[in-house]
Amino acid sequence: MQILKDRIVSEGACVGTEIVKVDSFLNHRIDVSLLGDIGMEFARRFQGEKIDKILTIESSGIAVACMTADHLGNLPVVFAKKTVPNTMTSGYYKSEVRSFTKGTVSEVIVSEKYLESGENVLIIDDFLAHGEAACGLASLVEQAGGSVVAVGAVIGKFFQGGEEKLRQQGYRVEVLANIKKIDDGKIFFCDADALPK
Amino acid sequence: MQILKDRIVSEGACVGTEIVKVDSFLNHRIDVSLLGDIGMEFARRFQGEKIDKILTIESSGIAVACMTADHLGNLPVVFAKKTVPNTMTSGYYKSEVRSFTKGTVSEVIVSEKYLESGENVLIIDDFLAHGEAACGLASLVEQAGGSVVAVGAVIGKFFQGGEEKLRQQGYRVEVLANIKKIDDGKIFFCDADALPK
Repeated sequence: MQILKDRIVSEGACVGTEIVKVDSFLNHRIDVSLLGDIGMEFARRFQGEKIDKILTIESSGIAVACMTADHLGNLPVVFAKKTVPNTMTSGYYKSEVRSFTKGTVSEVIVSEKYLESGENVLIIDDFLAHGEAACGLASLVEQAGGSVVAVGAVIGKFFQGGEEKLRQQGYRVEVLANIKKIDDGKIFFCDADALPK
Repeated sequence: MQILKDRIVSEGACVGTEIVKVDSFLNHRIDVSLLGDIGMEFARRFQGEKIDKILTIESSGIAVACMTADHLGNLPVVFAKKTVPNTMTSGYYKSEVRSFTKGTVSEVIVSEKYLESGENVLIIDDFLAHGEAACGLASLVEQAGGSVVAVGAVIGKFFQGGEEKLRQQGYRVEVLANIKKIDDGKIFFCDADALPK
């Protein structure tokens, strides 16, 4: 998705060789026009699939998931939580997600009421890095007896292996802007030459 | 907003006399069709105002803010964070927010890059209860030298005083479904008779 790659190159801030910050349009400030284009592109890629629900994870996945759902005919969105709210009294599915950046392991949860057996669930997130969050979300779907239709990520960090791991587990993966490497402050995408930074 | 009130009555779960859970369409599972209606209604109420940006707070405010921004001509959305990300290296505005439900005080922050002097900012959130979150967000806008155009909340708990507090401070407040009281598992709205539960 060229418009997205252009924004990553022009506004993304590289931190070392592992992190690119896109706070100016996705993770803190949200460019709602670009978000609409992202939702439309996901809808285009997944329009042939039978999807009952979109599952994402708070916080940055929520806007992307909702805009995608809007373009796929108002599908319901469920967002997994990173903490158990004190108002959540009924049961929930949980899985552990390791953060390589933070060096921590945390739980993600979804109420048992909002994932159902037999459902076809599309997983949407902002980033796909090591694939830990996506695997955690897939586990929640499967604990409930549902099926993962595909995993869609706005930005992939291909060099961190998450996409390959998900494909090896049999999941369809769609990444709108896939980064091959970050080197000397420059971002190289998987299917394009290095773009000037 | 009658369609919203109907959903609160049919799906909201009252916990005592203070809390109504709307996990099934707003705070965990999101009804994207209803979300679109909510965005359109906020856009209708605020269409006469000069607005440069929408400010909300993670997580449940994000979807509402983005859909409202979409209907107000793709305004940028900024969401305040409840924790300082380890990738946030530059300065940020912060304010303290007390949670009456949890009995805690926490910080909310926005990067200095995403709030600017002279900006007209619309604050949008899912709930308006004691007004602590809205006051915290307003403080962030004002620390940056901007002006608060108004505060919009999907659901108000009028009996907890937040709306009155904000009005006394001079802010315009719009609430789409305003709860007067919760009594014996029934929800009473401010501008309607008690609805059967």
